[in-house]
Amino acid sequence: MSELLWQKPGVAVDAQIQAFLAGDDVILDREFFLHDIEASRAHAEGLQHIGILSDQELADLRRELARLAEDFRSGTFVLDERFEDCHSAIESRLTERLGDAGRKIHTGRSRNDQILVATRLWLKQKLARLAQLNREVAAIALKRAAHESGLPIPGYTHIQRAVVSSAGMWWAGWAEAFIDNAVRANDTARLLDSNPLGTAAGYGVNLPLDREHTTRALAFGRMQISPVYAQLSRGKYEMAALEALGSATLDLRRLAWDLSLFTSAEYGFVALPAQYTTGSSIMPNKRNPDVIELMRASHASVAAARTEIEQLLSLPSGYHRDLQASKGAIFHGFGRGLAALELLPALLANLEWREQKLRAAVDSGMYATDVAVEQAAAGVPFRDAYRAAAEAVESAGQGRSPEGSLAARTSPGAAADLRLDELQHRLQALAD
Amino acid sequence: MSELLWQKPGVAVDAQIQAFLAGDDVILDREFFLHDIEASRAHAEGLQHIGILSDQELADLRRELARLAEDFRSGTFVLDERFEDCHSAIESRLTERLGDAGRKIHTGRSRNDQILVATRLWLKQKLARLAQLNREVAAIALKRAAHESGLPIPGYTHIQRAVVSSAGMWWAGWAEAFIDNAVRANDTARLLDSNPLGTAAGYGVNLPLDREHTTRALAFGRMQISPVYAQLSRGKYEMAALEALGSATLDLRRLAWDLSLFTSAEYGFVALPAQYTTGSSIMPNKRNPDVIELMRASHASVAAARTEIEQLLSLPSGYHRDLQASKGAIFHGFGRGLAALELLPALLANLEWREQKLRAAVDSGMYATDVAVEQAAAGVPFRDAYRAAAEAVESAGQGRSPEGSLAARTSPGAAADLRLDELQHRLQALAD
Amino acid sequence: MSELLWQKPGVAVDAQIQAFLAGDDVILDREFFLHDIEASRAHAEGLQHIGILSDQELADLRRELARLAEDFRSGTFVLDERFEDCHSAIESRLTERLGDAGRKIHTGRSRNDQILVATRLWLKQKLARLAQLNREVAAIALKRAAHESGLPIPGYTHIQRAVVSSAGMWWAGWAEAFIDNAVRANDTARLLDSNPLGTAAGYGVNLPLDREHTTRALAFGRMQISPVYAQLSRGKYEMAALEALGSATLDLRRLAWDLSLFTSAEYGFVALPAQYTTGSSIMPNKRNPDVIELMRASHASVAAARTEIEQLLSLPSGYHRDLQASKGAIFHGFGRGLAALELLPALLANLEWREQKLRAAVDSGMYATDVAVEQAAAGVPFRDAYRAAAEAVESAGQGRSPEGSLAARTSPGAAADLRLDELQHRLQALAD
Amino acid sequence: MSELLWQKPGVAVDAQIQAFLAGDDVILDREFFLHDIEASRAHAEGLQHIGILSDQELADLRRELARLAEDFRSGTFVLDERFEDCHSAIESRLTERLGDAGRKIHTGRSRNDQILVATRLWLKQKLARLAQLNREVAAIALKRAAHESGLPIPGYTHIQRAVVSSAGMWWAGWAEAFIDNAVRANDTARLLDSNPLGTAAGYGVNLPLDREHTTRALAFGRMQISPVYAQLSRGKYEMAALEALGSATLDLRRLAWDLSLFTSAEYGFVALPAQYTTGSSIMPNKRNPDVIELMRASHASVAAARTEIEQLLSLPSGYHRDLQASKGAIFHGFGRGLAALELLPALLANLEWREQKLRAAVDSGMYATDVAVEQAAAGVPFRDAYRAAAEAVESAGQGRSPEGSLAARTSPGAAADLRLDELQHRLQALAD
Repeated sequence: MSELLWQKPGVAVDAQIQAFLAGDDVILDREFFLHDIEASRAHAEGLQHIGILSDQELADLRRELARLAEDFRSGTFVLDERFEDCHSAIESRLTERLGDAGRKIHTGRSRNDQILVATRLWLKQKLARLAQLNREVAAIALKRAAHESGLPIPGYTHIQRAVVSSAGMWWAGWAEAFIDNAVRANDTARLLDSNPLGTAAGYGVNLPLDREHTTRALAFGRMQISPVYAQLSRGKYEMAALEALGSATLDLRRLAWDLSLFTSAEYGFVALPAQYTTGSSIMPNKRNPDVIELMRASHASVAAARTEIEQLLSLPSGYHRDLQASKGAIFHGFGRGLAALELLPALLANLEWREQKLRAAVDSGMYATDVAVEQAAAGVPFRDAYRAAAEAVESAGQGRSPEGSLAARTSPGAAADLRLDELQHRLQALAD
Repeated sequence: MSELLWQKPGVAVDAQIQAFLAGDDVILDREFFLHDIEASRAHAEGLQHIGILSDQELADLRRELARLAEDFRSGTFVLDERFEDCHSAIESRLTERLGDAGRKIHTGRSRNDQILVATRLWLKQKLARLAQLNREVAAIALKRAAHESGLPIPGYTHIQRAVVSSAGMWWAGWAEAFIDNAVRANDTARLLDSNPLGTAAGYGVNLPLDREHTTRALAFGRMQISPVYAQLSRGKYEMAALEALGSATLDLRRLAWDLSLFTSAEYGFVALPAQYTTGSSIMPNKRNPDVIELMRASHASVAAARTEIEQLLSLPSGYHRDLQASKGAIFHGFGRGLAALELLPALLANLEWREQKLRAAVDSGMYATDVAVEQAAAGVPFRDAYRAAAEAVESAGQGRSPEGSLAARTSPGAAADLRLDELQHRLQALAD
Repeated sequence: MSELLWQKPGVAVDAQIQAFLAGDDVILDREFFLHDIEASRAHAEGLQHIGILSDQELADLRRELARLAEDFRSGTFVLDERFEDCHSAIESRLTERLGDAGRKIHTGRSRNDQILVATRLWLKQKLARLAQLNREVAAIALKRAAHESGLPIPGYTHIQRAVVSSAGMWWAGWAEAFIDNAVRANDTARLLDSNPLGTAAGYGVNLPLDREHTTRALAFGRMQISPVYAQLSRGKYEMAALEALGSATLDLRRLAWDLSLFTSAEYGFVALPAQYTTGSSIMPNKRNPDVIELMRASHASVAAARTEIEQLLSLPSGYHRDLQASKGAIFHGFGRGLAALELLPALLANLEWREQKLRAAVDSGMYATDVAVEQAAAGVPFRDAYRAAAEAVESAGQGRSPEGSLAARTSPGAAADLRLDELQHRLQALAD
Repeated sequence: MSELLWQKPGVAVDAQIQAFLAGDDVILDREFFLHDIEASRAHAEGLQHIGILSDQELADLRRELARLAEDFRSGTFVLDERFEDCHSAIESRLTERLGDAGRKIHTGRSRNDQILVATRLWLKQKLARLAQLNREVAAIALKRAAHESGLPIPGYTHIQRAVVSSAGMWWAGWAEAFIDNAVRANDTARLLDSNPLGTAAGYGVNLPLDREHTTRALAFGRMQISPVYAQLSRGKYEMAALEALGSATLDLRRLAWDLSLFTSAEYGFVALPAQYTTGSSIMPNKRNPDVIELMRASHASVAAARTEIEQLLSLPSGYHRDLQASKGAIFHGFGRGLAALELLPALLANLEWREQKLRAAVDSGMYATDVAVEQAAAGVPFRDAYRAAAEAVESAGQGRSPEGSLAARTSPGAAADLRLDELQHRLQALAD
């Protein structure tokens, strides 16, 4: 590793200890590298505003930062174990190329606010993608709901057939779920939209930093004013982001459960395009819905990431090295969670219902509730109507059709009145 | 137990199984009882609008529901093991008093949307209280920040003395933290502000229920349109509420850690009023800050509640009995979490700094960063200034005072420029 | 509340703070009350051995402790909010009845080792019950495996039909699982079988307590020697116990999943006795397997309890009030977890297979693997045999019967060679 | 990627989906590669025993497997994205070199039992290392306890000074803790010591596999008999291993907390060798105990890993692709957890007490408990002695010395009677 920024002369370095301290930090920092460069440029601009850097120095730093970003993107520059972390890598490159200007760029900042701002920019980007994916899922679900409102499917409670439902109702449920998830992603993005750059190691510095500039330059919605809170928000904001992601992956877990059952031989309701299934190494007859299962599993990674940070955060205020582990956690959680959500829109767009199987699954007992409610509407007290229908469950459905039953379901949001326009309206409002 | 609503003739009931099924449901339902009554009234009004109930029946139901609420509040009516749950208790009382009108009230609803709406009203109430407590904590912190901006305290990183900080900076950090927590509580309250009543068992009913009325009557911000989503939101919304609470209790955990250290003999920075401490059964010399420790522990209960629900929610869509456990979870999490937050404003208002101890804890090495930054501002590249200050750490602070050091800290948000007005402004915006 | 043991004169008591400190401690302490009495008797005997109590005082204390236990069991004595906790209640009763002898019993102990020993006795009892239930489940599973080894059922991977399996194989799997769970319960019981009484508040006392006597009298396997470790083991041992319980409830979660699917209309493999199902408040046609669902949910409570303690235990050594929350956690986790396991043996003994449905679910593709392996055994490289069978999956099963296929499965542990004797032998070894 | 083992002709492969399915599997599989080779050799031997492979084929396979292991160790063979997973890589290499013999090796096994057995061998190795590290920590703690039994340190409860303790007591506490942790690692290793090879995809195969041979050849303590249980144990065993690890890292978390406080300026009790500390990028005066903080944080990673698996395991019996995520989880948990424990023995051996600071921290109030107990021993009822000492806390310690106070602490396990021999005896029994 290159020289450590903070190294004092005469202190021996133990390789095993250094490896433990480093962990896989520098590898993880590849994720945050471009954000760190972006924030470094804004910081340099701020330093020029208050006279720490000359115009020439700023111009040089901007140019070298842009080049480093370019080299990183092209693979010419590789962030690896030669460096302690991304911060050291950037500073060391700038110093190598620019001498004093490079040595000046760390004036008035600490690695503490550097990693805070880089992580925050990264999280904002991920939350924006999350919001978009949530909207895409909702849009596809709404579209399919509109086309498939007349397709009867069994409605389950307790994994037991309960009443007749429709594909339209099923899709509308997921649409409203992912609209909520998009709202949540937006709310969280707004909560995190707060600039920590300029808070140094948690107590500010004796320089009149131009934090208004860095806030604007990095497109933050507001300044995170208190340096003490900037430190307190590390981990806390990461958890909030993971919770917003978890809201979507938890729904995905339930959606994947539906599809896992619907694609089984016993249900047979759904056919998946072949590219979503895999074979078995021993059983030649199998086509397995692995994609669905890994989607179902993705929430576990999000939950694990959240747990990792929550377990860390039993600490006094101020920075502690324990927080280093939060980097790997968000990378793991968002890596797995978003990867699953990325595949979801196309999967939903492409899955096919097997109508014959769906119709065959609607049996006469599933009309009993409707019969009881109709009698109640006709004046029979519901409890009496219920008992009558329970006793006559076999004959309750006689002469009924699934379509007729769905058409009778007139409560707002139910089969005959899905109110997709209202959901579409809410979705549209989010996109605007 | 009274007769089970769904009981069919001829099926034997096993007492141990019934006890297992019931759990402590009916006891927990005391929490939700008044909300269930409120929602039942709105439902009855809706039934009258569509002709299921006559004007007289509605008037009778309203009167009896009001009486039952009154009896419950006064203790005349006790919800206990005689009943399966709060829903059965209400219906059975109405039927006993009103006959057919009582038997009609369940028309067009299910216990599924009944518990959904009662829980949601409960959660809205708790989130409103959470938001208010967060604001109170922020207000006290801001007030003390303004009064104590000149009081030097050590600023720590790694639980090591780092630089001079001030009581004002410390308070401002908590102020901004709890403003964020209030924002989060508000966002979450808005997310949950959605009326599930009228979605029945997850598939709607064949009645044109007046869901617009119940939405208005129960003061919900919007209708939860899809019955399928109403079921999917069970547990999901509970988790969102616990996460908003957890945002505050996690900060409280860190605040309690600070106070736990600050009240130790080694730090000695803070004196707690005697009512916040307890004695030992064996050690006559002890005064223990138990209140602070239980505050610190409160997040564990919130985390446990969230875990309990998250562990349940690996399920297909539709209702499953597994979800019953979510009731106890939110009761436990909000019970412990809010109880801790309820005590916090007064604790913060009453704690006293021990100024002498604070001043004694500021040693000369804590000026080194300021010296290095000053040299950097004067044109020495920061890395060189850093090295110089590292070598001269003993003499770095000579001739300095804590107050002078704080006054030099001029970056926005730092000691000399806490920007409390801006925080006050944000807090005010929340209260409006 | 009665006078606080540690109360010093002149300190005002704040009711809200006292309520927060107390939590539901005294209610939870009902669980530990008899264990505390048992340990108090052993402690008193030890005090007499070293001359702190006279023979008469010991005799009086023993008599009063026995009476108090009797009064508690009969309901004559109720542990309620009049007391701070069970320890105070016992000491106050003894002092009231016996004067100085009562005031002497706390000599050489602290509430810290008192709750440690009472909790440990409680946990030992619960772990013994856990081990027994695990053995019972294994015994029933083994018995049914022996009777039902010839009944074909589909063997699933990915919830897709894979190969022919048998009811015998299914049962044998659960048998081996619960044998492991019993081993784990035993290992954990042995780990916890360590006497903390006599360690006071974590640093021992200046009395030569007869800890060998209390270890023997309370039937502990060994003394927990270090007072420092006695405190460190609080929470740690509770987690170990919950993890042993979780091993069983996690298997139960998977078993309940099988049964939840098997009792669905789509599978139709299993019929549950009517007492294990419930009805719906709105759908007259439903019989829901709620017992199975609550069994599936029980692990969530165990997981939550473990989380609650784990979240607490980020603390320095020594006692902290945070640990109070561990009491409610073990009560919740073991309450829910054992309640589910208590019902399991009878449920397993009574469930009925629907043979016709099982046979109908075996389709020809499920023989493909067997065909491929047979060809491989005859010399065709497995990868070639696999490809051939994959292409001929439709005809692969022609002329085969499920029974024939099962009989060919001769690898140790597979259908034709279940090795139930070996499992029986392991189970027997555990019971001895 | 090379051809997929299970690929059928005519099915298009989607690159994004394949990437999602693969995850970082093949990178993780580097961990399990040598174990897979070892198990493949045992499997091949078994196939030769039952006539599937000729003597020559077995000899060839053994040779090529040995070469592949050698190439892997030397870096000549790199397991990377060219392969789907380690299983495919091995089979493909064998087929490339040996033709039919390579194509035959998968006879009678599935990737399911292949990953099971490889993971289990890996876990056994990790648990053995865990047990050894636990014993090493206990040994060092015991050694230092013996040398430092006379060094007074404050004994804390509630992070408040309580009574005089000694370095010896402190060390003995950790010794007993890590002896327990070693017991737990051993118990868990025994639980997992069960051979799953030969269970195929969870239902056995129609070959009389020589599972006794593979059990012996791979040094397993017993055969995992039931193929159904082999699948059920996936994840369950991983959790058990992580829980055993967590028992140690949870103690480490508390130990690190002690050291984090002890190395603060306020306590100043402990000096760490310089190689265990790092500097700050902005504060020249700092030496931060990062190693201790990352040790404290290591439990969070273990907890996260356990959570990830637990969240997955809400599944019916049989294999599901969800389980793939358990690989990364154990790698993460054991990676972080063991890395921290690896550094612990040397850290403990090298840390230095600052005796003067320790002595200065013993104040007179810390004798009050001893005084009260002495009076109680002299016949004053404890409650009266307690009150007297509480009132006279200032004078209670007059004329006492820390050493005298420790010498009076005669209860077994306390300062004057640490019983290190008994702990040494227990530790020795574990090593045997």
